[in-house]
Amino acid sequence: MSIVFSAASNLSWHKDCRQSSPPIGSWRLKSRIQSCKNSLQSDIYTQHRVGARSTGPIQPTHLIQVATTAAQTGAQVVMDAVNKPRNITYKGLTDLVTETDKMSEAAILEVVKKNFDDHLILGEEGGIIGEAASDYLWCIDPLDGTTNFAHGYPSFAVSVGVLYRGNPAAATVVEFVGGPMCWNTRIFTATAGGGAFCNGQRIHVSATNQVEQSLLVTGFGYEHDEAWATNIELFKEFTDVSRGVRRLGAAAVDMCHVALGIVEAYWEYRLKPWDMAAGVLMVEEAGGTVSRMDGGKFCVFDRSVLVSNGVLHTELLERIGPATEELKSKGIDFSLWYKPEDYRADV
Amino acid sequence: MSIVFSAASNLSWHKDCRQSSPPIGSWRLKSRIQSCKNSLQSDIYTQHRVGARSTGPIQPTHLIQVATTAAQTGAQVVMDAVNKPRNITYKGLTDLVTETDKMSEAAILEVVKKNFDDHLILGEEGGIIGEAASDYLWCIDPLDGTTNFAHGYPSFAVSVGVLYRGNPAAATVVEFVGGPMCWNTRIFTATAGGGAFCNGQRIHVSATNQVEQSLLVTGFGYEHDEAWATNIELFKEFTDVSRGVRRLGAAAVDMCHVALGIVEAYWEYRLKPWDMAAGVLMVEEAGGTVSRMDGGKFCVFDRSVLVSNGVLHTELLERIGPATEELKSKGIDFSLWYKPEDYRADV
Repeated sequence: MSIVFSAASNLSWHKDCRQSSPPIGSWRLKSRIQSCKNSLQSDIYTQHRVGARSTGPIQPTHLIQVATTAAQTGAQVVMDAVNKPRNITYKGLTDLVTETDKMSEAAILEVVKKNFDDHLILGEEGGIIGEAASDYLWCIDPLDGTTNFAHGYPSFAVSVGVLYRGNPAAATVVEFVGGPMCWNTRIFTATAGGGAFCNGQRIHVSATNQVEQSLLVTGFGYEHDEAWATNIELFKEFTDVSRGVRRLGAAAVDMCHVALGIVEAYWEYRLKPWDMAAGVLMVEEAGGTVSRMDGGKFCVFDRSVLVSNGVLHTELLERIGPATEELKSKGIDFSLWYKPEDYRADV
Repeated sequence: MSIVFSAASNLSWHKDCRQSSPPIGSWRLKSRIQSCKNSLQSDIYTQHRVGARSTGPIQPTHLIQVATTAAQTGAQVVMDAVNKPRNITYKGLTDLVTETDKMSEAAILEVVKKNFDDHLILGEEGGIIGEAASDYLWCIDPLDGTTNFAHGYPSFAVSVGVLYRGNPAAATVVEFVGGPMCWNTRIFTATAGGGAFCNGQRIHVSATNQVEQSLLVTGFGYEHDEAWATNIELFKEFTDVSRGVRRLGAAAVDMCHVALGIVEAYWEYRLKPWDMAAGVLMVEEAGGTVSRMDGGKFCVFDRSVLVSNGVLHTELLERIGPATEELKSKGIDFSLWYKPEDYRADV
């Protein structure tokens, strides 16, 4: 797989906001920051949707049907492995995880290729395969939340997101819920412009309009760099001012939970396209908002994401945006993580 | 309710351990701390079980049958409320939570009183009621994890623990799992000396013997004091060295997850008897270990708890113990939180 590091959008957090960023104690002094709020809201994420404007020559119903069949096929592989005994040696456990990851991805790929043999595919396990000239890019996480899976701890998921010219067009996430003695799955689906659904029922983000009344979620990646340390600080700050910050361990699941309206927002610094492609569309189609953690326009090749119920997005960015800008000022890499060479992306 | 503040056990963290507490970077230098490990293991928690040595004149089978009926009766109240729409005003949501809490407790109390009209009962909502001269104290959390419940976020639980002369004799926790579109429950039960069960099947803690391969859980209470800040530091340290620290939001549930073997340990600084009475017995009867966060002998009237799979207890205490001792040296209150006046407790 060849990695392209290109500069991200130069859209940056407003200097006025950064300079006037209030300490946590004065957070509720809304008037001090209203001007920043207004400018952010109009300039950045409200003008931008992450979902594709069109699904091209393939109907959304066809795309989502294949995405869902593919995700369910992968999920069957995972469910078979879930029921295997966990009290095995660590080496054996590692093998189980790796094998399940690979078998799930192979099962998903088979479905996608059978239906669309000329599409481009980016899988967590197999990297990029297929036709670079295609307008369609399938982003596949065959097992999102491997640590949870290894421990039998809910939740984890199979995530399949389809991009059309770089933007999410259709998405399916099969979430594994419950845990030992009561494993079950819940299926989230969305198409660009067509809404988001859970087990076939339309879903919506929450209407909560105050951080103090919100339940939030974040994640911490494997790389313990400065972004990781900054997010521990954000975890502390939001644990202080919100009703709580959950740490569940599966990005696609956390985003689906925002779409489902059971948490108000989720953010993370270090993610990959297969972690985000499906989840961001789910949130947007459920009425929520998606941006980078610096508040800039998001695309699935970015490294960070903030998804929220929309109402709270600006207020959350008041803390998250400046913290992210500070990381950027220290030279921490926030350029696009990866975009397949020659793939046409209108982002 | 009258609160008795009495001095906790004077058993304290070994000075040698505190002085030689290694920085996080040298954590794997096992030899440096082996002597502390050995003395801790023999002196403190391995000599002590939290479970009652006897269930007195009432058979364990009778106690657990009533505890389970009581918990299931409360859980039915909670399940009815779970299915009510969540997109209501915040005031309405608060009312729903308060009302569910109270109705669940009333339903549980009715079952307990009907079976044992001369027992003492400590409920989260109603405080202490009943016969102070009784050897039996029922510790009831009618809705553990109210924030999760309010948001429809799994998990939360109904927790019923019965003490005989101050020590857990029987315990039932009904956990609500899954979430919207797929709510389900899972029932944990344990009796002192009789083992722990989930949905009727015997359960065991995990065999994981390295912190690096462990999945951990902690909680942060409503009071944001120095103990809270210290636990944010512990969250950071263990997120750095383990496979992850989960933050789920319901103490009884987290402890049942340790008993189930899907996480290796759980700790929290500020808990109440109704949060802990059932969970600690579940962990111990599943083969795990229970202590205070300073490593001292635990009783359910304490404020802090560390439960683990046993194998990892000493290694976890190497970080958690000294951090807790430091809080004590600053004058943070670690005395018993509450013991009902005149209640005979062999602790």
